[in-house]
Amino acid sequence: MAKLAPPEAPQMIGLDWGTSSLRAFLIGNGGEILAERNGRDGIMAVGPDSSDPRADFSRIAQSTIGDWLAEFGQLPVLASGMIGSTQGIAEAGYLDLPTDLGDLGKHLTTVELDTVDLRIVPGLQKTASETNAPDVIRGEETQLLGLLTPELTEQRTVVLPGTHTKWVTCEGTRITDFSTSMSGEIFGLLSTSSILARLAEPTDDFHHEAFDWGVQVGSDDPAALTSSLFSARTWALDGRLLADEVNDYLSGMLIGAEVASQLILNTESSAPVIICGSTSLTQRYSRALNRLGRETVVADPRAAATGLFRIAEHSGLVPIKENAHA
Amino acid sequence: MAKLAPPEAPQMIGLDWGTSSLRAFLIGNGGEILAERNGRDGIMAVGPDSSDPRADFSRIAQSTIGDWLAEFGQLPVLASGMIGSTQGIAEAGYLDLPTDLGDLGKHLTTVELDTVDLRIVPGLQKTASETNAPDVIRGEETQLLGLLTPELTEQRTVVLPGTHTKWVTCEGTRITDFSTSMSGEIFGLLSTSSILARLAEPTDDFHHEAFDWGVQVGSDDPAALTSSLFSARTWALDGRLLADEVNDYLSGMLIGAEVASQLILNTESSAPVIICGSTSLTQRYSRALNRLGRETVVADPRAAATGLFRIAEHSGLVPIKENAHA
Repeated sequence: MAKLAPPEAPQMIGLDWGTSSLRAFLIGNGGEILAERNGRDGIMAVGPDSSDPRADFSRIAQSTIGDWLAEFGQLPVLASGMIGSTQGIAEAGYLDLPTDLGDLGKHLTTVELDTVDLRIVPGLQKTASETNAPDVIRGEETQLLGLLTPELTEQRTVVLPGTHTKWVTCEGTRITDFSTSMSGEIFGLLSTSSILARLAEPTDDFHHEAFDWGVQVGSDDPAALTSSLFSARTWALDGRLLADEVNDYLSGMLIGAEVASQLILNTESSAPVIICGSTSLTQRYSRALNRLGRETVVADPRAAATGLFRIAEHSGLVPIKENAHA
Repeated sequence: MAKLAPPEAPQMIGLDWGTSSLRAFLIGNGGEILAERNGRDGIMAVGPDSSDPRADFSRIAQSTIGDWLAEFGQLPVLASGMIGSTQGIAEAGYLDLPTDLGDLGKHLTTVELDTVDLRIVPGLQKTASETNAPDVIRGEETQLLGLLTPELTEQRTVVLPGTHTKWVTCEGTRITDFSTSMSGEIFGLLSTSSILARLAEPTDDFHHEAFDWGVQVGSDDPAALTSSLFSARTWALDGRLLADEVNDYLSGMLIGAEVASQLILNTESSAPVIICGSTSLTQRYSRALNRLGRETVVADPRAAATGLFRIAEHSGLVPIKENAHA
């Protein structure tokens, strides 16, 4: 079997193991992705009625990366995401805010599987106060480390859009605050199961004018969101909103209200907002932020792989390269 | 058959014929309700695949009030609600805002059924402007006439809570504005189909402390609603919100954000807000408004019957009594 020559020599395996998906990365000694696999075996693939969850997760790991382990010898395997929750293979704990992501590598949890030791990254938690609800993230901390560098000392806002979009405030790799918005899940419910769904015709096209119109309505008065949403129905009945535009109008309104509300909270910095997510959602959040006067930077959506490599460096699982990030 | 003596002599039949229900009132010559029937034969009972919708609606009317018509002779029959829409028996049109509800009786639509002429009340419509979406109501105009009197010349706000809650601004019986909030439908979706539903245990009890907490969170920053909603999950995971309290916390937050946003819009008057709806929703809106510093008046939920009687008077279907409202 042909061996790969440095610098492409595989150095570790990274797993971004979430609720509904498992992404595996074969990572080289400079942190570069040598191979990538995307599967649907998120932690939901092992149900609460499993008699031996650890064995089930072990089998999934073996079928996903067993050939890499066999081909390249015993590589370190590092995982982030919901695999480290009570519904996953083991509770990997949390670091309390404020915290520096450089500390993640010092708090790994090790689970011995049949064929390999699995190291798991802790999440981050915000404890409750008089005015703020508690909140946790798990998986996003690794993405954040992958896209942030200590040199970014100015306060920055990072958006990780999804079903539950995370808004994170940081200075360099130090995380000071985050919050979760349900606008993605609410969009899903309204566009499939509400009275608004009856007038909408889903399409794969992006109707940017309808989206921008929604952003304007949502951001003009974010407090009136539950009223403004009904205008998707009345404009559609009126004929000025076409059936295939309803969902983009709705998406724009929800994202517009969310972005406007978050920008009110984050006025201390005017630095570009960093966005990391799927192409479609990144485009939408970037467009809404730009329309509301904020510049954006779109980060590499494979930041999780970079984050896993950095955590492996910090923890000593792989040697630190001289030019590596601290 | 025993005849009723005046003033209890039946004078008319009123139908509050909505999307999912049909309420029939036998009304005396002073406007009093002599008998009432509540059925589920809303306009949805006649589907779009009916070969003869008019005949189907006629049969429903006959089975609901046929015995009253037979017993008391040919009484005028007046209906309000979605029966007057394109999905109903005939499109009964709209009056444009601003309008006086005293004019409703001049614009009835007559549909000849097999056994009786059915008169239908028009709805109200707000036409679109640069900044406002169009909106319509159908059925609520009759409730409003039933609970308002011309003597209330000060600007008043009326709330008609439901799946789609209506907020109406009026001076006496003159309607100047209204808007629709989807908070009721959003509550239904979130409490049954979202990630929040997994931690909630529905109960029939009203957990007023959880509701009040939600009102506070929702009204403190209504613009942040899509973020604040997630706190129902994090407080429940934290243990400070019990499973049987989650839905009331959620209900309080949605109503709190809606009420706070509406009070910002309606600052011209400090008169008590009038609420007309089901006991449970009336209690919730009243509690939220009171906590936010506004007095409330709870109107008779059978205002539709009173409104139908007044419209019958205005249109000449029944004689106007000397002491009747104009």
